[in-house]
This record gives sequence, C-alpha cells and structure tokens, in this order.
Amino acid sequence: MSYPSYLLKVIDSLKRLPGVGAKTAERFAFQLLGWPSSRLTELSALIAGLPTEIIACEKCGALMDEKRCPFCNNASRDFSTLCIVASPKDVFAVEETGSFRGIYHVLDGLLSPIEGKGPEVLELEKLVGRIEAVNEVIIALDSTLEGDATSLFLKRELEAHDIVVSRLAFGLPMGSPLDYVDSGTLAHAFSGRR
Amino acid sequence: MSYPSYLLKVIDSLKRLPGVGAKTAERFAFQLLGWPSSRLTELSALIAGLPTEIIACEKCGALMDEKRCPFCNNASRDFSTLCIVASPKDVFAVEETGSFRGIYHVLDGLLSPIEGKGPEVLELEKLVGRIEAVNEVIIALDSTLEGDATSLFLKRELEAHDIVVSRLAFGLPMGSPLDYVDSGTLAHAFSGRR
Repeated sequence: MSYPSYLLKVIDSLKRLPGVGAKTAERFAFQLLGWPSSRLTELSALIAGLPTEIIACEKCGALMDEKRCPFCNNASRDFSTLCIVASPKDVFAVEETGSFRGIYHVLDGLLSPIEGKGPEVLELEKLVGRIEAVNEVIIALDSTLEGDATSLFLKRELEAHDIVVSRLAFGLPMGSPLDYVDSGTLAHAFSGRR
Repeated sequence: MSYPSYLLKVIDSLKRLPGVGAKTAERFAFQLLGWPSSRLTELSALIAGLPTEIIACEKCGALMDEKRCPFCNNASRDFSTLCIVASPKDVFAVEETGSFRGIYHVLDGLLSPIEGKGPEVLELEKLVGRIEAVNEVIIALDSTLEGDATSLFLKRELEAHDIVVSRLAFGLPMGSPLDYVDSGTLAHAFSGRR
C-alpha cells in the first residue's frame, strides 16, 4: 500500500532539500501532518514569501535586510578591498571571522565543466566593472575542484588590471591533529609555512 | 552580522522538523533561497494544503486517499482482527510486510508519565467500542518505554473482554550478527524461542 498521492507530492518536494533522501522526507512529511494548522500556515507563508522578502543586492549580490545592502550603503566599510565569494551564505561566514572590513562580490556560480558551467556563469563584465574602483581583490572560494578552477581563472583574468589579487591561505584547520589532515592539505601547509 | 530577520524566521520554522538543528535549518533555508519561485510556490501550497488534503479516517485513524478509508470500506479485509498502532505511519509499515489482512486502530499517542500523558490520550472508549466486533487484537506498538507501558496497560484493559490479545514478538532483527544485538533483545529472543 502506498502513501496517499498528496503525501507523495509533499515527500517529493521535500526530497529536493540538500541531504534529504526518501526516508527523511517521509519523516518530515509525517511530522508536518502532526503540526497544528497555524504552524503549517506560518511555514507555508514564509516559504512563499522568500522570493519577495529576501533580495540580493543588485550590485554585490549580498543578501539585504529591509531592502538595504549592509555593505554597499555602509560608509564604515573599506571600499578599496573586494572579496569574491561563491554564495550569499559565504558572506556571513566571512563576516563571522571579523577579519574583513571591505566589500563583497557574490558570484552566481562556479566553473564546472561536468555541469556544463563555463565562464559565462561568472558574469565577468559585472566583476571587471567593479574592480576599477578597488586596490585589492581577495578570492575566497571553496577549496573544491570547482572553487580551484574558478579561482585560477579569475586570477588570470584580473592580473591584467593593476590590482593586488590574493587567495585565501590553505593549511591546517585549527585544533586538528596532524595525522587527521589529508596529504594535499599538509603539502599546502608546508609550502605556505611562515 | 546576523542573517536577515525574515531568513531567521524561516530557519526557526524549519528547525521544528525532526532531527533538524540550527545548521541544517540554515542549509535548508539557503537552498530554498536558490529555488525557482515556481517550486517555492508549489512547496508552500502543498504544506498549506496538508490539513485539508490529508485526512485520517474518523473510525480507525488511518490516512485516507481521496477521502475514503482504505480499510474500513474494504470488503476484502478481515474485520475480525484488529491491529493497534501508535501512528498513521505505522499502518504503512505493517501493510508493507503483507502479513496482516485485518483492520487497524491508530492511537492518538502513547502513555508517557514524563510528558504527562496518562490513559486519557488513548481514548479507550473509542477502542472498546470497536473491539466488540472483533475476535483478536494485535498490539503493534514501538518497543520503547512508552510503547511497552501502553501495551501492558492496553493488554490489562482488553483482557476483561472475550478476545485474544497478543503483542508483536521480540527477537533478533533479520540479518543481524548476534554480537550486534543488545542483551535485552537477546534475552527476549531466548525466552521467545520456538
């Protein structure tokens, strides 16, 4: 006996969340069934409102609270340093460190030959238009295959301009025993010793 | 810097799903931000529609597809055997086995002194009213503290009536090496050997 068709639709939709497989989606769906309808209405409205309530800054791509970019409109930021990140979430991760006071540029994706994503996803004209006004660009992309490829590509493109381009350091994560670190990271930690 | 307040509300709501902590809810929220708005509208509508689209049978508590109980209105079922389960999801689990052809009774909860749930959550009158018509009752509750307490309580209540009352067998799960099984289960498997 299969679940009611409506429930199957709910499960299918929930399965699209990251890391949620069939079993977890089922658990979520049955949990939702037990929620009071006021709570369901609330979640439903919150989800429906996402595209209009959460807007990314047209200029830098960071998420705005109350329709105002917390960076582009903030005189206390250093407009001469630009940090390139891969997603709006990464902006919060960098802010969390408290070690960057410049402005951001959120890419809309990373290079990925496997997924057929070429240089056009990076919207280079938009980025090049912005670096005219800065002295330094910090590339803060994931240390994954896609992040590496994109960083290398961006570095080459930006070198033509008269700015300092750097990438985040690779090395040991804090609090990690040496024998837990993979050899690639360890090699980077050696070559980047100071 | 904290997330936009709207996003925080979305994260708070998603955190109420089972097994979803703050980090997972954040990942879900940012993933939702990247969904096309048509998909968000779909999920939103599906969630809002749950209370009206998925209804439990008033008689047995099983979920109905197309407003029709697949058990109470099904002449091919054996109406003399009643299986007591703890949730609508358990009905599907029992059906999956293919070894039960009777009808169901879904409890609205289990006894739990810690959560202050006494016998009133079991709605005994409703259950007693149904067993008048059956010969056998199979108690198929979780093998947890709450399930055990409820099973014992129901067994005592139902013994007064002239019916066979049984509970699911305890023992080794299929495909499990002996030394992976806890001692409580192993003791049950010994005492229930046949």
